[in-house]
Amino acid sequence: MAAKHLVVIGGSAAGPKAAAKARRLDPHAEITIVQQSPDLSMASCGYPYYVGGCFDDRNELLCTPTGVVRDAKFYANAKGIRALVRTRATSIDRKGHQVTCQDLGTGETLVLPYDKLVLATGATAVRPPVPGVELEGVTTLQSMQDADYLRRLRDEGRIRRAVVVGGGLIGVETCEALQLAGIGVTVVEMLPQILGFLDAELAALVRNHMLAKGAGVRTGEAVTAFVGTEGRLTGVALGNGEVLPCELAVVAVGVRPNSELAQAAGLPVGQRGGVLVNEYLQTADADIYAAGDCIEVLHLISGARVHAPLGDLANLQGRVAAQNAMEGNHARFPGTLQTGVCKVFAYAAGSTGLNERQAAAAGFATVSMLTAGPDKPGYMGANPLIIKMVAEQGTGRLLGVQCVGPGDASKRLAAAAMALHGRLTVTDLTVADLPYAPPFSPAIDNLIVAAHALENKMAGRLTGIAAAEVKRKVEAGEDLLLLDVRGQDEYELMRLGLGEVLIPLGALRRRLGELPADKGKEIICFCKISLRGYEAATLLQAHGWTNVKVLEGGLAAWPYPRG
Amino acid sequence: MAAKHLVVIGGSAAGPKAAAKARRLDPHAEITIVQQSPDLSMASCGYPYYVGGCFDDRNELLCTPTGVVRDAKFYANAKGIRALVRTRATSIDRKGHQVTCQDLGTGETLVLPYDKLVLATGATAVRPPVPGVELEGVTTLQSMQDADYLRRLRDEGRIRRAVVVGGGLIGVETCEALQLAGIGVTVVEMLPQILGFLDAELAALVRNHMLAKGAGVRTGEAVTAFVGTEGRLTGVALGNGEVLPCELAVVAVGVRPNSELAQAAGLPVGQRGGVLVNEYLQTADADIYAAGDCIEVLHLISGARVHAPLGDLANLQGRVAAQNAMEGNHARFPGTLQTGVCKVFAYAAGSTGLNERQAAAAGFATVSMLTAGPDKPGYMGANPLIIKMVAEQGTGRLLGVQCVGPGDASKRLAAAAMALHGRLTVTDLTVADLPYAPPFSPAIDNLIVAAHALENKMAGRLTGIAAAEVKRKVEAGEDLLLLDVRGQDEYELMRLGLGEVLIPLGALRRRLGELPADKGKEIICFCKISLRGYEAATLLQAHGWTNVKVLEGGLAAWPYPRG
Repeated sequence: MAAKHLVVIGGSAAGPKAAAKARRLDPHAEITIVQQSPDLSMASCGYPYYVGGCFDDRNELLCTPTGVVRDAKFYANAKGIRALVRTRATSIDRKGHQVTCQDLGTGETLVLPYDKLVLATGATAVRPPVPGVELEGVTTLQSMQDADYLRRLRDEGRIRRAVVVGGGLIGVETCEALQLAGIGVTVVEMLPQILGFLDAELAALVRNHMLAKGAGVRTGEAVTAFVGTEGRLTGVALGNGEVLPCELAVVAVGVRPNSELAQAAGLPVGQRGGVLVNEYLQTADADIYAAGDCIEVLHLISGARVHAPLGDLANLQGRVAAQNAMEGNHARFPGTLQTGVCKVFAYAAGSTGLNERQAAAAGFATVSMLTAGPDKPGYMGANPLIIKMVAEQGTGRLLGVQCVGPGDASKRLAAAAMALHGRLTVTDLTVADLPYAPPFSPAIDNLIVAAHALENKMAGRLTGIAAAEVKRKVEAGEDLLLLDVRGQDEYELMRLGLGEVLIPLGALRRRLGELPADKGKEIICFCKISLRGYEAATLLQAHGWTNVKVLEGGLAAWPYPRG
Repeated sequence: MAAKHLVVIGGSAAGPKAAAKARRLDPHAEITIVQQSPDLSMASCGYPYYVGGCFDDRNELLCTPTGVVRDAKFYANAKGIRALVRTRATSIDRKGHQVTCQDLGTGETLVLPYDKLVLATGATAVRPPVPGVELEGVTTLQSMQDADYLRRLRDEGRIRRAVVVGGGLIGVETCEALQLAGIGVTVVEMLPQILGFLDAELAALVRNHMLAKGAGVRTGEAVTAFVGTEGRLTGVALGNGEVLPCELAVVAVGVRPNSELAQAAGLPVGQRGGVLVNEYLQTADADIYAAGDCIEVLHLISGARVHAPLGDLANLQGRVAAQNAMEGNHARFPGTLQTGVCKVFAYAAGSTGLNERQAAAAGFATVSMLTAGPDKPGYMGANPLIIKMVAEQGTGRLLGVQCVGPGDASKRLAAAAMALHGRLTVTDLTVADLPYAPPFSPAIDNLIVAAHALENKMAGRLTGIAAAEVKRKVEAGEDLLLLDVRGQDEYELMRLGLGEVLIPLGALRRRLGELPADKGKEIICFCKISLRGYEAATLLQAHGWTNVKVLEGGLAAWPYPRG
């Protein structure tokens, strides 16, 4: 039998993974990677950390754990894979089973026959059609060359001010990187909030942290032009007419799938521009698979097709595509939870599954709870963590979990993602057996605390109210009582300052007489994290007050200025 | 309607949680906690960290997150709960619905009527029936008084040598605490390995780490006597006649449920001595619930009744028992995964579900894989993590996961525990959507790497061999080839030293001629973590060698001395 020819187009994440897996499955196959860029297997998620100076050797982004750079020679010797770098695939002849490529160095044309083809063409950073986008000083952070450019700027130390256009995950990571590089940074986001994978109240907490760390954050502002002199950027103009002076602008407004090659070959592309594949990651052509940032996949909770350009998924998909290309369809990629996390200075922020906005948009009747608490026992040096858990009303099925704060968010997101994979309910989570020891978590893990609170809410034991709603009511002058049940000492240190009354929980039983005689009056109880607030609410309800609420997350999750 | 009387016997973890939850469910109930010890709500899992000097204020073990000590006054004022400390429940009159108690201070007898009773009597550290166990200097670390005693010894600084009897979780944590306190420690364990929740090869890695940190570890040695002069401990005698000189011995050979009170009241107790309860945590008496270390619960994987004395479960069970006691049976505690984790110097070590030994004992046909790898991208400052994943043959259902190493084990254990709750398979884990960003995990998380490797093994792509088996074969002089496929530089730094041949993976294709002409010869491939070892094995198999194996976990997980 003749050796099978596998051609993989794309050499960043999904492509090399597919090629390497294919090699392990079939040591005799002829495997070729076609890669447009000069580099291979770039750890592109690491670019911000290279730019920010977390490490200095560019090769660390390209090498194996033992320090060998994954170049064409490495692929040839260690893997028996031919890697053609600086080579662009220009067309696919599906009938003839061959890919035409151009060597970007020599301009020569190559024709590669294939038995199976894997498309891993990735995605391209969107550059908004805004005047001045071609100015020197306007860049993206998507390619190794972008990373090299920004790192050089850092090392030269001449840039003083930068604007990051786009407050998504990459924008926020880039903001931190530039600030670490000693550059003053402002993030400009067109939407009313940063980090669209979060609900607004959590995004606001992250924004506050960025501001506290000295970064500028402008939400709800469109960039209308990049302005400059002599071809060099000098500022970014906003919709309100303001110009933010800067010598550098990094555009991070999202990516779109590189699906032109597939489209030109007649392969169907979805509404988000990604190549359409089945659960085996097979395109409409049985001999062509696709993986990574160039495809659309199913969202495991909403069932909708989404574009989920995430490095970890690209690797998992590359492996699945290779298995099916080499052995026939048997390995499935069922879909994504769009799990994402990022470091933002001392915070981590992430989400898995649907946030409440997305869940509502997907047609779910949702119930949610926001809780705050330390991520370890206090005596072990805990850090706060804010969790928002979203479930389906009625069934209690978990729909999504968001975590932000200085605490260990990534652990809770990993556990929550597995809970979503297992289709667990909130009640399942209330009795989950997670690893407990004081160096690692509180006796009741934050994720379980969130489930307890959400279960209480679903059972009607607790009526929560979000910070935004409290703020709205206060600003509208509604007739309500804000009841702080913390200790006097805590109150002296920090308070809401919106006209609240302080009655410490320990004194509340004997001071009920100080509360409104009108038992129907709206009373909003809170403390630092609203656990004591919840206890106060149950006490008031037991004594006849009928309109008692608990501020979700308490003062720890209050994202607005305090009075 | 008259207020409901709830009596809770036990005031450490499950008891106070049950009482507090009951209070929130019914603000009018009369709730009483009966607690033998002078303290309430002790964070007993924190004792080792107090003893070791991680913090100095004893009250931190007893206080709320905002620093209020949970004493009887706190329970009265903040919770409306009567807490009777230094009070022992001496009998339960089930017909008369009352508990007789004795005030340990005054000797007076109290009779508490109840509508519902929650037993949370905890467990007691076993003191082996060994001569000299009553000597001064022999203690346990189970009560707040034990913690006070050991902390005082630390602060006095007069103890130089200690022996910890028992190499389980508490024993190992105590070892670290005493060593931090400046005391030379030897752990003596009767079984052939420490940390029985781990399989032997992982326990050996933890043991090596303890030795490297200067602790002594003696396994397979029984303590036959505590020896002393003038009533004070001077040494611990082992079965082999040796005496380990020491001024302190901490006995940590396990705990047994305090079920005497229940038994005397005619309530059934299980084979492990724990009170028997149904999934609502209700005993054979419909008005008596039980929670925490005094009960037996179902193991969610094996289905067997187990004793799982863990602080987090005690809290979760206390909450469930209270819900059912106050509102009728509706909340379920389905069982435990016996998830546990502990810090051991710079390592974490833990397990969730069944280890391979336990799974085999439970009647499962198992397949397992041990993998090693960095817990982040190398450029972010990664730490190694060793994972052993155990699944059921045929179905691929996940049965358990163990993690040890300096890497972030607790995150992977939390995610694995949720995967077990969701009854996921290894294949489900191969495409799990976990949170990825370079500060938090590698692009393919360690847990997914483990699933990939185990799936490869189940699919017959990889034949693994455990370190213990390799050692046995080498010692037996079997005819095999050990093939190290790392780089020459790695080999110079550190090697197995058991007669292996070095051929770097990148050179293997052209140096196949150096391998045995006998294609049936047993060849065991390895590298640092056995990923290159796996690639080498596929290459050799493709070239006709038929008996090729991969050393699981590679050199990183080799627990024996190197030659």
